[in-house]
Amino acid sequence: MKKWEEYIRKVTPYVPGEQPKNTDVIKLNTNECPYPPSPAVKEVIHNINSDKYRLYPDPDATFLCGAIADYYNVDSDRVFVGVGSDDVIAMAFMTFFNSDKPILFPDITYSFYDVWADLFKIPYETVRVDDDFKIIKESFDRENGGIIFPNPNAPTAIGMPLEEVEYIIKNNQDSVVIVDEAYVDFSDCTAMDLIDKYDNLLVIQTYSKSRAMAGMRIGFAIGNKKLIDAMKAVKFSYNSYTMNMPSIYAGAAAINDKEYFEEIRDKIVNTRTKAMEKLKELGFSMTDSKTNFLFVTHKTKPAKEIFEALKEKNIYVRYFNKDRIDNYLRITVGTDAQMQALYFALEKILGK
Amino acid sequence: MKKWEEYIRKVTPYVPGEQPKNTDVIKLNTNECPYPPSPAVKEVIHNINSDKYRLYPDPDATFLCGAIADYYNVDSDRVFVGVGSDDVIAMAFMTFFNSDKPILFPDITYSFYDVWADLFKIPYETVRVDDDFKIIKESFDRENGGIIFPNPNAPTAIGMPLEEVEYIIKNNQDSVVIVDEAYVDFSDCTAMDLIDKYDNLLVIQTYSKSRAMAGMRIGFAIGNKKLIDAMKAVKFSYNSYTMNMPSIYAGAAAINDKEYFEEIRDKIVNTRTKAMEKLKELGFSMTDSKTNFLFVTHKTKPAKEIFEALKEKNIYVRYFNKDRIDNYLRITVGTDAQMQALYFALEKILGK
Repeated sequence: MKKWEEYIRKVTPYVPGEQPKNTDVIKLNTNECPYPPSPAVKEVIHNINSDKYRLYPDPDATFLCGAIADYYNVDSDRVFVGVGSDDVIAMAFMTFFNSDKPILFPDITYSFYDVWADLFKIPYETVRVDDDFKIIKESFDRENGGIIFPNPNAPTAIGMPLEEVEYIIKNNQDSVVIVDEAYVDFSDCTAMDLIDKYDNLLVIQTYSKSRAMAGMRIGFAIGNKKLIDAMKAVKFSYNSYTMNMPSIYAGAAAINDKEYFEEIRDKIVNTRTKAMEKLKELGFSMTDSKTNFLFVTHKTKPAKEIFEALKEKNIYVRYFNKDRIDNYLRITVGTDAQMQALYFALEKILGK
Repeated sequence: MKKWEEYIRKVTPYVPGEQPKNTDVIKLNTNECPYPPSPAVKEVIHNINSDKYRLYPDPDATFLCGAIADYYNVDSDRVFVGVGSDDVIAMAFMTFFNSDKPILFPDITYSFYDVWADLFKIPYETVRVDDDFKIIKESFDRENGGIIFPNPNAPTAIGMPLEEVEYIIKNNQDSVVIVDEAYVDFSDCTAMDLIDKYDNLLVIQTYSKSRAMAGMRIGFAIGNKKLIDAMKAVKFSYNSYTMNMPSIYAGAAAINDKEYFEEIRDKIVNTRTKAMEKLKELGFSMTDSKTNFLFVTHKTKPAKEIFEALKEKNIYVRYFNKDRIDNYLRITVGTDAQMQALYFALEKILGK
């Protein structure tokens, strides 16, 4: 080993859900939207004056922040945008979690929280979700340097009622509380309703799920102006230009097309209801999904076996080989046709 | 001040070159290309199947890495791409600079190096460029945890001959040496010629200058496979999807159009030669630019005054209020017509 190799950072690489190059695969493994984005997205990208690509994009992404602000009826200086919600959450960790006290998040949750905490040397502790995977609001009632949890939670798909979210924010007003709402559009409540009430609340959302734009990398945070200004200061201190020009304009076009958004969201919620029934008939039990995926376990067949058998049939779902959830599958809600293919495959695998 | 505000990270925000909303401005302040990108960029973005925006982009950006690898005639597993070269350099800092010894870079150089070093808690020392702003190759002959310098250097515009670059790499084989070649296409040598010879060498380039695509945010690094694998591991450990789909395809299309690239590069180099002459006539002296900008000082009129007077005339150039260079201006080489406007304005300002 050469000397310089000693100074290479040692990391545990994250393995994302597979992006198969084979296009025959039915992809129910990364919670993408099965429908295309709003036609307005295509149009706006077509109409960008390509001469303008030579210029740096607007570092403030003013146009996109304005559209998001209009949608949520807040001032645009209360919106921060980033290259996917991963970028936004990482920036929020870096900006707000600089206390010596541990930050808190659920033990079963999005798998990047502990990664970012390690990366930025932020102390953390996890709080245990109950045996039905529910986040217990009182578990955050202890000294901390910040709190983050997804609502609905992933990969459990469980939504927390707004009163419980508020309980956590209200009881932790000395810390910034981040509610990661990646899946909120498939749910029935949002912490956006609390941002005027609590100045320590930051709500983060994404275009990757309900807005069918994972390929464009857009995420955003909304909170009080002080929080947003702090995030901007940190961002601009080390990287001015991150979101590219097509994403700025496409993001604005998408959020302006509310009608299309509601149409595809309703389709997914509908398919989800039918899928829950059908999977129950096949011997699965599951949490009450408030997301665009189902978190299921089978009464007899181990999850890992089902995962592998489905993969052989070119149907990709997600399996986590992790404590407490290693007999569960996370299945993205696809189109009705994709789900039909899933049911047929499962019937075969389960010998029905 | 509330308790949570105490835990907000304190930063000195970077002020990027202004991106005026007023389109009448002649923008010679951020070293963008004055010509549009290859027509192939427009075409490929038009032809993207917009249904695919719903999917996460290929985290490996295989298509783009392949095109860059072909262009430089290396294996594609020796290419790392990121969201602009800022993203790539920051990732390289994080990956390679984990020694307790200080990293080294010139005292007059790209203003983000010390920012990233601070951000990632990397110790650093600067090496003094000489009174003509030349990097002294021997100044790196001391213990260090890594080295980075731009070649050509910014904002001085000076290029270092390849033998001197090689001297630095050869004499520092215990460290990773990063040559930041943001402006290399306007120069006459590249450290790409040394990557097969030195396994501690990482070369970083960008699409923001010579390829006229600052708005798409594309940068890349080429080095030995071990370096590239280490960067990928760090990247994937905390953020899988960064470069969006349009950038992946547009980036490949641009690098494939070598003819157009050479055409606009030659035009800029031509305009640069004429500009150097003309500015000398106006009483300026300057370094021998190997970039798409000029680093100039006037014999009588202070740089700051010229900067402000030009701004009033809607011509934006860059002024750095920094030790050693506070009587210099950095002027991007624009089109011939833009430069003509600059000369007229300067003649008025200088009373010629």
